Amino acid sequence: MDHLDGFPPSPELVIDLDRVARAYRAFADNLPSVNVHYAMKCNPHPEVLALLHALGSRFEIASAAELDALLAIGVDPAEVLSSNPVKPLAHIARQHAAGVWRFAFDSEDELDKIAAAAPGAAVIVRLAAHQIRSGVPSEGKFGVDPDSAVALMLAARERGLRPYGAAFHVGSQMLLAHAWRAPLRAVGYVMSKLAAEDVFLHMVNLGGGFPARYVVKTPPLAEYWATIGPGLAQLPYPVDAVCEPGRAIVAEAGRLRATVIGTAVRGGRRWAHLDVGAFNGLMESLETANQLRFPVSDSRGGATRDRFHLTGPTCDSQDTIMFDVELSADLRTGDEVYLDGTGAYTTVYASRFNGFDVPSVRCVTGVAIETSDDAAYCG
Amino acid sequence: MDHLDGFPPSPELVIDLDRVARAYRAFADNLPSVNVHYAMKCNPHPEVLALLHALGSRFEIASAAELDALLAIGVDPAEVLSSNPVKPLAHIARQHAAGVWRFAFDSEDELDKIAAAAPGAAVIVRLAAHQIRSGVPSEGKFGVDPDSAVALMLAARERGLRPYGAAFHVGSQMLLAHAWRAPLRAVGYVMSKLAAEDVFLHMVNLGGGFPARYVVKTPPLAEYWATIGPGLAQLPYPVDAVCEPGRAIVAEAGRLRATVIGTAVRGGRRWAHLDVGAFNGLMESLETANQLRFPVSDSRGGATRDRFHLTGPTCDSQDTIMFDVELSADLRTGDEVYLDGTGAYTTVYASRFNGFDVPSVRCVTGVAIETSDDAAYCG
Repeated sequence: MDHLDGFPPSPELVIDLDRVARAYRAFADNLPSVNVHYAMKCNPHPEVLALLHALGSRFEIASAAELDALLAIGVDPAEVLSSNPVKPLAHIARQHAAGVWRFAFDSEDELDKIAAAAPGAAVIVRLAAHQIRSGVPSEGKFGVDPDSAVALMLAARERGLRPYGAAFHVGSQMLLAHAWRAPLRAVGYVMSKLAAEDVFLHMVNLGGGFPARYVVKTPPLAEYWATIGPGLAQLPYPVDAVCEPGRAIVAEAGRLRATVIGTAVRGGRRWAHLDVGAFNGLMESLETANQLRFPVSDSRGGATRDRFHLTGPTCDSQDTIMFDVELSADLRTGDEVYLDGTGAYTTVYASRFNGFDVPSVRCVTGVAIETSDDAAYCG
Repeated sequence: MDHLDGFPPSPELVIDLDRVARAYRAFADNLPSVNVHYAMKCNPHPEVLALLHALGSRFEIASAAELDALLAIGVDPAEVLSSNPVKPLAHIARQHAAGVWRFAFDSEDELDKIAAAAPGAAVIVRLAAHQIRSGVPSEGKFGVDPDSAVALMLAARERGLRPYGAAFHVGSQMLLAHAWRAPLRAVGYVMSKLAAEDVFLHMVNLGGGFPARYVVKTPPLAEYWATIGPGLAQLPYPVDAVCEPGRAIVAEAGRLRATVIGTAVRGGRRWAHLDVGAFNGLMESLETANQLRFPVSDSRGGATRDRFHLTGPTCDSQDTIMFDVELSADLRTGDEVYLDGTGAYTTVYASRFNGFDVPSVRCVTGVAIETSDDAAYCG
């Protein structure tokens, strides 16, 4: 409906699997001894999951449906972390029955549910760690203070569960590598207090939050390791370390190809309306109040540039993507606009609000997607 | 997966069609001579559409897919308004071919598209009218100032299109009835200026924005008419008037039945986690930064109350629904929570993010849904 026969579908999200692989390997290279459990919520496309599985990645899940998607590609449930601190009882039972044995929690109620539906399971307590503002606000509801975490772990032991690990999440798209420092100290405190009760942990879960490069440049992963490595070394005794990147693995691999469906001038400002917006693929524009800036280019490639407000196809202004974006000054209806960095947290939130199609998804290998050149980046 | 066999599905949105009918009739009763074109984007459930069609409602659409849903229930396309000011060319062509003949616009580019895909069509210019803050921010991108509107209507005539009407939208959930006053004056200005060019309009489109009652009481429709009626009477010459309510027709008819999947205490605050949140049904919580307050009650019905933060099932804090909600102090996992006022702008935005089900929808008649009693309302 939205495109002419013979023309490529639009909107379309193209995922460069080679870039996914490269991003995954960067974790192995820069965070040695830290096992990656991919946060599949950000992009659970079967080809992405299969590639990461083949590369040796493990996974973290938030629901039974996510586990089913992993089972479908042959992932061993024993290597899957159930990292959502609050889970429906039926999901715990289903995951336990399938072979998942490690469950996150941050409340007594969750312990009761885990004890009932997954007796004897290993449990990972979630610490609060959202003092520093991250690029995409995503934290706040989960996590307890260190003393509460200690009490909860002892309560877990009383219920016949196995105190196994401590987890935290610094917030999505965290551009400050030192954000991991304070939470790791808190984990150390919890470990020491628990050791006095003869409880010893086996794992620290560093969570996600590792950033993807959008318009703003991100610190290299090595800089994160410069905080995390010493932080792990200073724990009271050695434990396994895992992390749960999502965005950092797949965001940069995605290019969303959209079509200009109309242009307008309103109050002296130029607008470009695309066939994709916040509701059918770019929800993080809404979540961040349009502060997340995707690198953008267009098919016209004009040397003369102008600033546009970039919005979506619906009647609702909230589907606006970005304000004041530089594009070809002669941009017109029918041109294509390319949004890079759209491999994570895009199609997973998409709805057909107002009757507009969600992007089709196509995974490619061996064909490097031309990304916006560095001139499109700033900072 | 999320419920036990024999138990009702959860989450489930129940729509009381009798209340939809009552809300529709309130427009006929209170806004005499104004034709209602239901804004189907807020709830395009086939039974809702069929009921409103049977009652005599007309419709406004934003896309070809919305038109298809109307054609499926026998709506006459000639009575449908194509009210999205920027439309993909293919959608204009499809709507024109089906018999839609009135199209909104606010740019020369859109005029070019309409002239190409729907030659001779009637066009309705969209005026900017979002100076007053509405309950749900939804405006901003569409609409031009009155002088630009006049110029655009003359440009429409030059393209062989028929200058037909003027439209505006004061913003969704508008609690101030006088918000319609200034835009109606602007319409009068446009009509006068165009009359001097021998162009006469046939319609003024008052848009939507009529509020639904959530926790905060809304002014009666009669109060809106007290502004709109005189505003219409003061136009330079008589025109047909239409309005495009959505939320005001269906929101109060909806009750979302959810289940508590877990409770927690964090930092001294109590949390109740439901199987529904911003991503799988309550997106307006996110859109309004949790300022939209749904009337809430629970199956426990305890006399002792306590305050809870109400959140959804995903790993992401952004799926939080409301902070500081009064519920039964002994609320526990497995209890039901009822969110009233959820008939509009809920399931239309729902995605399966993180693998959680979207609400099933059930329409009922002859069975008044017990709504939270007035004690649950304030203001």
